[in-house]
Amino acid sequence: MKISKQQLKELDRRERAHFVNQLTGFKPAALIGTKSMGGIENLAIFSQIIHIGADPALIGILSRPDSVVRGTLKNIQETEVFTINQVAQSFFKQAHQSAARYTDAQSEFKEVGLTPVYDESCYAPMVEESPLKLCLTLKEMMPVKSNGTTLIIGEVTSIYLPESALSPDKTIDYQLLDTVTVTGLDTYYLPKKLARLSYAKPDKTLEIL
Amino acid sequence: MKISKQQLKELDRRERAHFVNQLTGFKPAALIGTKSMGGIENLAIFSQIIHIGADPALIGILSRPDSVVRGTLKNIQETEVFTINQVAQSFFKQAHQSAARYTDAQSEFKEVGLTPVYDESCYAPMVEESPLKLCLTLKEMMPVKSNGTTLIIGEVTSIYLPESALSPDKTIDYQLLDTVTVTGLDTYYLPKKLARLSYAKPDKTLEIL
Repeated sequence: MKISKQQLKELDRRERAHFVNQLTGFKPAALIGTKSMGGIENLAIFSQIIHIGADPALIGILSRPDSVVRGTLKNIQETEVFTINQVAQSFFKQAHQSAARYTDAQSEFKEVGLTPVYDESCYAPMVEESPLKLCLTLKEMMPVKSNGTTLIIGEVTSIYLPESALSPDKTIDYQLLDTVTVTGLDTYYLPKKLARLSYAKPDKTLEIL
Repeated sequence: MKISKQQLKELDRRERAHFVNQLTGFKPAALIGTKSMGGIENLAIFSQIIHIGADPALIGILSRPDSVVRGTLKNIQETEVFTINQVAQSFFKQAHQSAARYTDAQSEFKEVGLTPVYDESCYAPMVEESPLKLCLTLKEMMPVKSNGTTLIIGEVTSIYLPESALSPDKTIDYQLLDTVTVTGLDTYYLPKKLARLSYAKPDKTLEIL
């Protein structure tokens, strides 16, 4: 079936948000940890996360317009530090619950039952339960003219993961990490490994590594 | 284990690219279809794809610097149209093969064995084998200062998917679509649905929808 731009326009606002959010396919599910200048910890689930580059190691996260209070964006603007914590199957419901609109004085860590943990070199809290945690410092804020969102680009300064999940050739075993993926705003999936494929060359058959 | 920024710097260039590309977790696997002004079709696998907004429906894809020939970026700059085609399990190896450096005169469709299909309102080719195809028109090109990449933002103008995969409340059944997700540059996973969760509110228990 075909759905046109005009048909998208005719959908109810919530239904359109639900539908369009699913069009990019599988997305990462991660918790962004920040801390305000006043010391209040903030945790928010994000799926709009994109690899920007490897050298330096850059990752972008998309924040909605700050017309309403957006703790994460404000904290990053002020402190220039945030963490990205992959969501595992064992706590995906708590992670989803972090999207609720708690008051500024409430920390989502406490409200949803997750544990903040610190690295001496990172002002923002990481999530102890997460099997893959990153600390980043702010590099660039890119306003998207088309809709008022902001792409926040950070540079990875430290990475935490279980040694058992990292092979000698630096492949991360995400099945062992047991992390989830999300489609749209609310549907969680657990991936199972199919294959790692060799580097593609014009006249060479792919191999399974 | 902890890996620091300094340790990342000390890795070999290829190993660093392989490792850092995995840090954002599960990514979509999609083929970007374009056609040059001269009529040559181009197909390239991308995983750096991000939902930007629902109204209008905006999606961003990240392109590497155009210091070398980048057919996709050039074609989008010239024609302002591209397609995003989700990769299913049935053709993920062909999709991966599209990353090989074919010459400008070669169409990846023919080289890897996938079929171009057209919508009268879309200049760029879609991939017939793909269960979820989008046509987009260029809205914004955002240069990333930190590393010379470009975030290409397009507006969705048409969507094709099987009617059986769309529920009345506009949820897309990705398990039925049988699409894959990728970590890093080369490792493919097949997700299985865990649960769709209700909208999170501060004093409400989450329900499975």
